[in-house]
Amino acid sequence: MATHQGRKGQATRAHILDQALDLSTELGLEGMSVGVLAKVVGMSKSGLYAHFDSKEALQVAVLDHAALLFVERVFKPAVTQPRGLLRVRALFQEWMAWSATAFPGGCPFVQAAQDMHARPGPVREAVGKHLRDVLDVIERTARTAVESGEFRQDLDLEQFAYEFWANIVSYQHYGHFLELGHAPERARLAFEGLVQRAQIQEIRP
Amino acid sequence: MATHQGRKGQATRAHILDQALDLSTELGLEGMSVGVLAKVVGMSKSGLYAHFDSKEALQVAVLDHAALLFVERVFKPAVTQPRGLLRVRALFQEWMAWSATAFPGGCPFVQAAQDMHARPGPVREAVGKHLRDVLDVIERTARTAVESGEFRQDLDLEQFAYEFWANIVSYQHYGHFLELGHAPERARLAFEGLVQRAQIQEIRP
Repeated sequence: MATHQGRKGQATRAHILDQALDLSTELGLEGMSVGVLAKVVGMSKSGLYAHFDSKEALQVAVLDHAALLFVERVFKPAVTQPRGLLRVRALFQEWMAWSATAFPGGCPFVQAAQDMHARPGPVREAVGKHLRDVLDVIERTARTAVESGEFRQDLDLEQFAYEFWANIVSYQHYGHFLELGHAPERARLAFEGLVQRAQIQEIRP
Repeated sequence: MATHQGRKGQATRAHILDQALDLSTELGLEGMSVGVLAKVVGMSKSGLYAHFDSKEALQVAVLDHAALLFVERVFKPAVTQPRGLLRVRALFQEWMAWSATAFPGGCPFVQAAQDMHARPGPVREAVGKHLRDVLDVIERTARTAVESGEFRQDLDLEQFAYEFWANIVSYQHYGHFLELGHAPERARLAFEGLVQRAQIQEIRP
């Protein structure tokens, strides 16, 4: 049974991770300094290090925290929809909202993939694991639409996941990085094109 | 007429920019410290600052340098092809090569867009300008295929550019960040799908 002290420690840890996640989407996992984070959460650097053994441990914990939030805010709402195209649409809509509004700097996985790729080690491994997990979520969701008969039986699920993810990443580039106001409309049209091709046999001119 | 001293200064500047560009694709424009760059080019930090007034000026110069290389290595080889689909294909192939092999960390514009988006100022403005330029290159190239009759007359060129760019960015994520070996095949299939839809009228099931 958790003691009062233990619960307080968990709440502090969760508060630190929320702030660290927000900061990391703006400054990068690597650019987020422990000093700045300590200031934002109102603790000393040594107080922070009482919760995380090292900056690397903090970075991995931030990614795990992002993955939990992704399940809560994107995956779980999508699976309340019936299996099939409705669920694929819900996944895309929740994901757009996650990319656009959940964090100041957009999707933490898009950010982390770029930030950590030249820095081998446990943090980059954690990024890779989480990214493979989210790609797997796309494939599994699309498979329910194949099984329901809404997507064609020979659909290349890996290619579907690639193009779905391409749209998410590009939406982030257009919306957050280029600040182009028409980013949501571009992303929605790309998604509709993707769905349409998943439904019909390809026709060559 | 350039003096010997002036030519030497230009060669040194070009050497610094080549090294800085490579480094920035790995560490980010912001993560690349002037100290590390000085070490790589074998100069003192004050020697470097004799060529660039500030880190910001260096970052903008690196982006301008990348844009010149992009014209040389992607745009110019593409425009040696006849106007139309051949040129669109060449643009894509040269761009894939640029993303995959030109720099240790992939396309400098993809990197810079993410790295600078939370840091307003002249460097971010330079990133935005160059990105709008490359999107414009895609639109103008696709327009030659509309004019040649290979792409349909009502093609949404802005949407075509969005999806072309989405594929480039995602290719970088798959290839460089996730190190997935099938990235080139995924990107080629996505490009063929994009071309196919540009050629035919959309068919609803």
